[in-house]
Amino acid sequence: MKRLDIRDSGFEAGFSSLLASREEQSDKVNEPVAAILAQVRREGDTALCALTEKFDRLPLTPDKLAFTADEIEQACAEVSPELLEALDLAATRIESFHKTQLPKDTRYTDDAGMTLGMRWIPLDAAGLYVPGGKAAYPSSVLMNAIPARVAGVQRLAMCVPTPDGIINPLVLAAARRAGVTEIYRVGGAQAVGAMAYGTQTISPVDRIVGPGNAYVAEAKRQVFGHVGIDSIAGPSDVVVIADSNTDPRLIALDLLAQAEHDEEAQATLITPEASFADTVTAAVEAELKVLTRSAIARTSWERNGAVLVVRNFDEAIELANRLAPEHLELMVDDPEPLLARVRHAGAVFLGRYCPEAVGDYVGGPNHVLPTSRTARFASGLSVFDFMKRTTFLAGGPEALKRIGPAGVALATAEGLEAHALSISARLDALTKNTPNA
Amino acid sequence: MKRLDIRDSGFEAGFSSLLASREEQSDKVNEPVAAILAQVRREGDTALCALTEKFDRLPLTPDKLAFTADEIEQACAEVSPELLEALDLAATRIESFHKTQLPKDTRYTDDAGMTLGMRWIPLDAAGLYVPGGKAAYPSSVLMNAIPARVAGVQRLAMCVPTPDGIINPLVLAAARRAGVTEIYRVGGAQAVGAMAYGTQTISPVDRIVGPGNAYVAEAKRQVFGHVGIDSIAGPSDVVVIADSNTDPRLIALDLLAQAEHDEEAQATLITPEASFADTVTAAVEAELKVLTRSAIARTSWERNGAVLVVRNFDEAIELANRLAPEHLELMVDDPEPLLARVRHAGAVFLGRYCPEAVGDYVGGPNHVLPTSRTARFASGLSVFDFMKRTTFLAGGPEALKRIGPAGVALATAEGLEAHALSISARLDALTKNTPNA
Repeated sequence: MKRLDIRDSGFEAGFSSLLASREEQSDKVNEPVAAILAQVRREGDTALCALTEKFDRLPLTPDKLAFTADEIEQACAEVSPELLEALDLAATRIESFHKTQLPKDTRYTDDAGMTLGMRWIPLDAAGLYVPGGKAAYPSSVLMNAIPARVAGVQRLAMCVPTPDGIINPLVLAAARRAGVTEIYRVGGAQAVGAMAYGTQTISPVDRIVGPGNAYVAEAKRQVFGHVGIDSIAGPSDVVVIADSNTDPRLIALDLLAQAEHDEEAQATLITPEASFADTVTAAVEAELKVLTRSAIARTSWERNGAVLVVRNFDEAIELANRLAPEHLELMVDDPEPLLARVRHAGAVFLGRYCPEAVGDYVGGPNHVLPTSRTARFASGLSVFDFMKRTTFLAGGPEALKRIGPAGVALATAEGLEAHALSISARLDALTKNTPNA
Repeated sequence: MKRLDIRDSGFEAGFSSLLASREEQSDKVNEPVAAILAQVRREGDTALCALTEKFDRLPLTPDKLAFTADEIEQACAEVSPELLEALDLAATRIESFHKTQLPKDTRYTDDAGMTLGMRWIPLDAAGLYVPGGKAAYPSSVLMNAIPARVAGVQRLAMCVPTPDGIINPLVLAAARRAGVTEIYRVGGAQAVGAMAYGTQTISPVDRIVGPGNAYVAEAKRQVFGHVGIDSIAGPSDVVVIADSNTDPRLIALDLLAQAEHDEEAQATLITPEASFADTVTAAVEAELKVLTRSAIARTSWERNGAVLVVRNFDEAIELANRLAPEHLELMVDDPEPLLARVRHAGAVFLGRYCPEAVGDYVGGPNHVLPTSRTARFASGLSVFDFMKRTTFLAGGPEALKRIGPAGVALATAEGLEAHALSISARLDALTKNTPNA
């Protein structure tokens, strides 16, 4: 853990190096990923089966790539009613929030007589990547699939690796609840390749979303352009702005909820009280002694954790904006004025009773969020990721007479004669047909 | 030019091969681009000057990278008043349309007592790439810069190559009109590298937009993740759906307005009248004899042009959706019912007096549009490219009691103990403090 005090002379250098360490890293997996994608594109299902046997130790044949309706049914029967109810509450809240994102088509006619507008249209098919093994998170299934369904996407293919054949039944239950239409037991770069290029069994999709490891991220980067992708997911991070009015143990748990994700996760406390920094740090140590995932959380905290002591909340918000965190907790008495000044953050959690973990599961907003400081330009997953816009322009003879000549002038200046002629020949025709115009 | 009739047995095979030829191509410039980006990242301004001398035959020193206010002023003085007026009409109409895209923040409190919402925030800085040399299009400057300014982006850096030192004064006039704040005489992958990583002279931006050649496109792909980018631009394309009620020469000019862009451009006519296909084809030949850019247009038409004869407009729209064109012209008597059935197109132009060239310059909607069939998942440039969303979630003790337990159940099922504890410890504290709750 790195502790910096804004009053110390070394603060700016230390903070800059913290920023640099949180930029996206090059993962040096370009070449193996390119090879896997090429193999999938060339051999289709055969490649998927071979790679799944190699990486997931799971012998497969093409007819076993997809989970059957019976397998999904059976998995759901294994899940406790309490969990199914929790899943349903989460799904209902996520649906409800994402419905508020649905954009409206526009259409208007302006002074020149032109009619202009924009239509929002859902994608035909989306592909959802869901990490498997130890990171097989049913909540991720809901967060990836529900915005697509709310957007109106009809076909929703999901790929989830099942290392050694093991699948979390709750993942399948979540997929069913969220309206996923196809589920394949394939993971890694090969799953991304299958969804991008298609195989005999898996039809290609138009956009691939969902978090994954370095191979998945690199595969998404490489297929980008052929299909759409969401942002490249890096390690998860949180910035907690807090003062001593919150129990230090609660703040420690919020920091550790990030740290327990994986060793690269980044948890940062910013506080105006140096003594509170001490008590939270001590509380983190105490919790690390008892947490089940303490080995991971300790490595994350020691390597990537940070405690920043500032003079006031103004400075705290300024540093948070520079960190552009994935998650930002405002654990203070009056969080709203601080929220108004947040410029760069994926999602913000306001007030002592609204920890980030609520947002991971049952809040409603998406938990697939921009990492590695990309909140400077990127946003969380949303219905917008599953729709695209088509603009339109309509106009008759009178409108063309009003705005056409400027188009001819600009096209001519750009040396594009056919562009100019396609307008001017219509204007000429109008002049001939209506000599008094 | 490839002519296919839907009534012929070979149609489906021919059409599929047309589709495949219009997918994005791998440009085999990965390695030289990676080398250029590394050089810019390592050497900053020194690399920019060396590469500009090498590729644009323009010796530069760091202090000459940016155009000065005087240079811009002087360039604007060289532009005719008529052109400045045309530029202003275009800019005003583009501003006006893009203002209708500005999204509204949301905020609501739900039954559980949680307050949820989403804020749209402009990027701090955007970088605009503008092609130089023969493709130095002032209209592109307007189309790239205006949405950023409308979105509220404060810093707008523009890079435009000036091969042999030549700059189109109208490009600088357009940049001034559009509110660009910095203009650099740098192009190619090195310009993308400078905007992504920053140099001594050019501060890094958060997102890079604008079309460019294969090097620019590959550079954008490689810096994606470190900064945001818009979609990767391929060759321009148009699909024109028309019947014989329009003068075949006008349709020929619309097709050639695409074909004259470059040799890879793709122009397609879809018509239910075989004889109209003949007359348009003849008209294209006639125009190719007289057009100034006929060499380029002829190569494009012969290599990539297509004429598809169908039975009716239903089939025409179906093929257009499969082609997912950048531009779609509906040159028919009653285009509105056809528009309603367009699912995949960047921009649609309705009616005989609204050719695509109007949209290139003075229509209002953006002319930076998804190419290479990416309209299946991508959209034209917009204010959305220059904003990002921050979601927020707030709730007090009562709301936590309502939804917290489901969160604890799901976190526990996912094996994330600290997530569960960060909620349950708060619930415990509430129970202790309010024994009757």
